[in-house]
Amino acid sequence: MKKFINDLDSVMRESLGGMVAAHPNLIRAQFEPTFISRAQPATHKVALLSGGGSGHEPLHAGFVGVGMLDAACPGQVFTSPTPDQMLAAAASVDTGRGVLFIVKNYAGDLMNFQMASEMMDLENATVLVNDDVAVERSTHTTGRRGVAGTTMVEKMVGAAAEQGATLAECKALGDQVNEATASMGVAFTSCTVPAAGRATFDIGPDEIEMGVGIHGEPGRRREKIKPAAQIVDDLLGAILLDLQPQRGREVLLHVNGFGGTPQMELYLLFHCAEQRLRAHGLNPVRSLVGNYTTALDMAGASLTVTVLTDQLKSLWDAPVHTAALRW
Amino acid sequence: MKKFINDLDSVMRESLGGMVAAHPNLIRAQFEPTFISRAQPATHKVALLSGGGSGHEPLHAGFVGVGMLDAACPGQVFTSPTPDQMLAAAASVDTGRGVLFIVKNYAGDLMNFQMASEMMDLENATVLVNDDVAVERSTHTTGRRGVAGTTMVEKMVGAAAEQGATLAECKALGDQVNEATASMGVAFTSCTVPAAGRATFDIGPDEIEMGVGIHGEPGRRREKIKPAAQIVDDLLGAILLDLQPQRGREVLLHVNGFGGTPQMELYLLFHCAEQRLRAHGLNPVRSLVGNYTTALDMAGASLTVTVLTDQLKSLWDAPVHTAALRW
Repeated sequence: MKKFINDLDSVMRESLGGMVAAHPNLIRAQFEPTFISRAQPATHKVALLSGGGSGHEPLHAGFVGVGMLDAACPGQVFTSPTPDQMLAAAASVDTGRGVLFIVKNYAGDLMNFQMASEMMDLENATVLVNDDVAVERSTHTTGRRGVAGTTMVEKMVGAAAEQGATLAECKALGDQVNEATASMGVAFTSCTVPAAGRATFDIGPDEIEMGVGIHGEPGRRREKIKPAAQIVDDLLGAILLDLQPQRGREVLLHVNGFGGTPQMELYLLFHCAEQRLRAHGLNPVRSLVGNYTTALDMAGASLTVTVLTDQLKSLWDAPVHTAALRW
Repeated sequence: MKKFINDLDSVMRESLGGMVAAHPNLIRAQFEPTFISRAQPATHKVALLSGGGSGHEPLHAGFVGVGMLDAACPGQVFTSPTPDQMLAAAASVDTGRGVLFIVKNYAGDLMNFQMASEMMDLENATVLVNDDVAVERSTHTTGRRGVAGTTMVEKMVGAAAEQGATLAECKALGDQVNEATASMGVAFTSCTVPAAGRATFDIGPDEIEMGVGIHGEPGRRREKIKPAAQIVDDLLGAILLDLQPQRGREVLLHVNGFGGTPQMELYLLFHCAEQRLRAHGLNPVRSLVGNYTTALDMAGASLTVTVLTDQLKSLWDAPVHTAALRW
């Protein structure tokens, strides 16, 4: 295993330390229990809190800041954060208007966020993100997995919260964005979890895993490598079958790299997917291309489509100032 | 070779097409001769033009926009752009105040930009970037290579040009930033050029290439993998030996990923490098962490330090709106 690390036990702490040191005006870290929060805490809005295993950066810590999250709780690599982190983070960012948890659908995350939720005296709600159409059940999941569509949920709910939406409105909006969003990914290589020191799964030199999860979980099928346009057809086919958008609808198209695929290829994927959406009579009016929901060093990418309304488009366009998204 | 491509001959065109489609309000592309320019051309400033082989994205096309470049000329992967591209781009963006070329020091790039320069009737100047302290001569280079410090040159000169600096002032500033900037990188894996279809160089499962170039050129030495802090010591040692900054100086620290290394590791590197700079009595007051000057899918990273003045800091902080940098 070749990684930039010093000690397996300090990977997360050193990485978070570097992130905060690189963005001192934006975020701060607290350790034990560990969470990232805004350097300038908000004072009168619904607090948005997310979290999950590390190794998916910039998700979620890179999305803490004005217009998006108030705090993020990182677990160890591919390991759920614990309820004490969530309680400490929630207590730190609560302004009295309630706390919304945004949780990707994995059994461990869900259990720990539910436990925190039950222990909290705060007004609390949870949006469960399950945008991955690849499989109905997976290694760590009952029901569909939450993957790159989480960015859309956190951005849009983040904008609404910043604009003064109530906890109930934020919760309903989060569910709405999740319903309007579908994703599917493909892996070319495995990722390598530092503590394991070896590839999570084996894959041949000409094989791809269609529908892979963001921890290297199996997808729908193993195939031979094929042209990008055909991969896009398969991924978008599954996504559109799920979303069933009407012709003429405006959509947001997100091409998400898993960490080991260069930008040149991500933009080529965007080119194919954008043309394909137009051929389906859809209108991709908003875009996001880059490494946002990663799986450590895995080569591969996912496509995410969100069917827009005027409201969702306006929430997407609202100002955001985080380490990973800024406009 | 597993890559998201359709046809070797159309990789660059499809990738640029995707990039422009993802940022329609920001950039536009012209093909044959090929260049990327601002969607809203500037009307009364020195025009900044850069370019080089593809495969280093977001450099340079991702830096076209307000506060940075006016145009970028991409060659095929790891291949210099041609003078006809530079002439067409320069003619397109010239506002009558002159055109500055920003060129990374590679023999092919330099020759073609010089040829374009000689063919132009426009008032023209060139800043040659050679920030890589690893080696004095390299595979494609006489003198030091131009690498990730190019981002600092393009950002700072971009800000000055936007503020009305003359061509001579932009040229002098570019040389000054280049002088104040030094970089060195390390590779864990090779990159794979699509047209070659195989790794550019062989490297063992426990080996790293210290001082690697951004096309996979050899560096100073092959070593066994070692802790991140020791790698940082070696890289920063060479950088500071070159820059010889006085204690107490403010610096910008850029951790640049080569394309295959996840953000978690880049921030861990930043953590180590930032602490090391402070131990040297330096004050890292500005930062940039991410994949900016890449080498396709190579795993590895480089460190860049720019010794700041109040003027350079202010130029770094000036607004920028490009696909890859925005504040």
